[in-house]
Amino acid sequence: MYTAVIIGIGNVGTHLSRALQCSSEVSIVQYLNRSQLSEGELSKRIGSCEAQKFTTKWETIKEADCYFIAVKDDEIEACIEAIPFHQKIVAHTSGSIALSSCPKQKNAVFYPLQTFSKSKELNFNEIPICIETSENEVYKVIEKIAHSISKKVHYINSFQRRQLHLSAVFVCNFVNHMYHIGNELCIQNNIDSSILEALIQETAAKVKILSPKDAQTGPALRNDKSTLQNHEEMLEGYPKYIKIYRLLSSSIASLNHEN
Amino acid sequence: MYTAVIIGIGNVGTHLSRALQCSSEVSIVQYLNRSQLSEGELSKRIGSCEAQKFTTKWETIKEADCYFIAVKDDEIEACIEAIPFHQKIVAHTSGSIALSSCPKQKNAVFYPLQTFSKSKELNFNEIPICIETSENEVYKVIEKIAHSISKKVHYINSFQRRQLHLSAVFVCNFVNHMYHIGNELCIQNNIDSSILEALIQETAAKVKILSPKDAQTGPALRNDKSTLQNHEEMLEGYPKYIKIYRLLSSSIASLNHEN
Repeated sequence: MYTAVIIGIGNVGTHLSRALQCSSEVSIVQYLNRSQLSEGELSKRIGSCEAQKFTTKWETIKEADCYFIAVKDDEIEACIEAIPFHQKIVAHTSGSIALSSCPKQKNAVFYPLQTFSKSKELNFNEIPICIETSENEVYKVIEKIAHSISKKVHYINSFQRRQLHLSAVFVCNFVNHMYHIGNELCIQNNIDSSILEALIQETAAKVKILSPKDAQTGPALRNDKSTLQNHEEMLEGYPKYIKIYRLLSSSIASLNHEN
Repeated sequence: MYTAVIIGIGNVGTHLSRALQCSSEVSIVQYLNRSQLSEGELSKRIGSCEAQKFTTKWETIKEADCYFIAVKDDEIEACIEAIPFHQKIVAHTSGSIALSSCPKQKNAVFYPLQTFSKSKELNFNEIPICIETSENEVYKVIEKIAHSISKKVHYINSFQRRQLHLSAVFVCNFVNHMYHIGNELCIQNNIDSSILEALIQETAAKVKILSPKDAQTGPALRNDKSTLQNHEEMLEGYPKYIKIYRLLSSSIASLNHEN
């Protein structure tokens, strides 16, 4: 069993902590977070039994086999440098930051490709974990830990991880923004936006079976000019949305020419 | 039991036929389609047992209680006019076209809010059906039929239906296009795009519990300028995608100012 310290218990750190608490390969010995958290908040994030392992004081950081760093991208390198014990496995959890080359540590990446919100429970077992390291011995440990909490473990190098993170912005952040706009248009026209739910779920379910290219439907793909024009007229009060409607419709329409 | 003729067995007509075949309120007496279909194709769409009820000849159209029209938007009115039997319930299935005012028929709308692809099975029971009619007596029939195939039946007027259809373009057609771009970026960088699947499903599942506004995450929302800039640089070879990235990021960023 590997001892571990979790550094940062924001969205990613919270979900990772919850998953590692159930891992047969890891024993969490400490949670370190820059800012203080209330008892209630701590209990929500890491569970009340674990609250005694929480600290905000870097000077009390414990020695452990592994350090998982789940802080903001621009604070990662400083965190790695600040760990006073050397030749430990130090894994950050970011999609955008390259594998560290800090010579004092055994550097690794442990990037769970998922969207995390504190108030939404997740089944970590289904979350792909992208791991990276330059040392074979470290790889074995990290892979074992990853497999103890997820059935989907991928070796992904820093270049690919950045690309994946960019793809994730499209299929998650931008998709969610489309949900937001669809919702807003309903609310502003006194329509119960929950009517959209089945469509949202089916649109996501469809791409398990069809490629997104084959799953594409709608007026832009059909080049249904009359509907496209009607929609633009309906969006006249929403200058931001009309730009989005035009740009995405023209991008979808251009797929036809690529065939 | 109401007798029914299905006019048009494209994507919507196919799925509607399959659902109405199982309805205890409806007996389909005929399927009418403009173009001929092979035996194999007919069997795939409406089932081999029903193939004998198929015709392409308008002059053989049967008398029935209800006519369901699932043809292209700009052909709907001509179809309604062409039905030689009068004072029948004639329901179109379009999101964009207003309730017909054809005086020869009892006009109705029967709009299933869903994305239909022939090769993907659907559970109609979960699909919201938006119904509309101006006559109380017709409403009762249409509502009964809708409830026989779906547990989600909504009375939605023509104005609201157009708005819903526009919302559907955002949460379905545009969302699917985001899936396409995410996929493309993976494929072009030799990454197995199936890694994105869990994220896609969770992004959709999340908005069952959180509003899209509360579910929003990502560099644009955090105003993480360094990641935004990196992503733009990575998209330099894709002028179409870079425009989309910029526009959607700035739209997400502006949500912060609305609070």
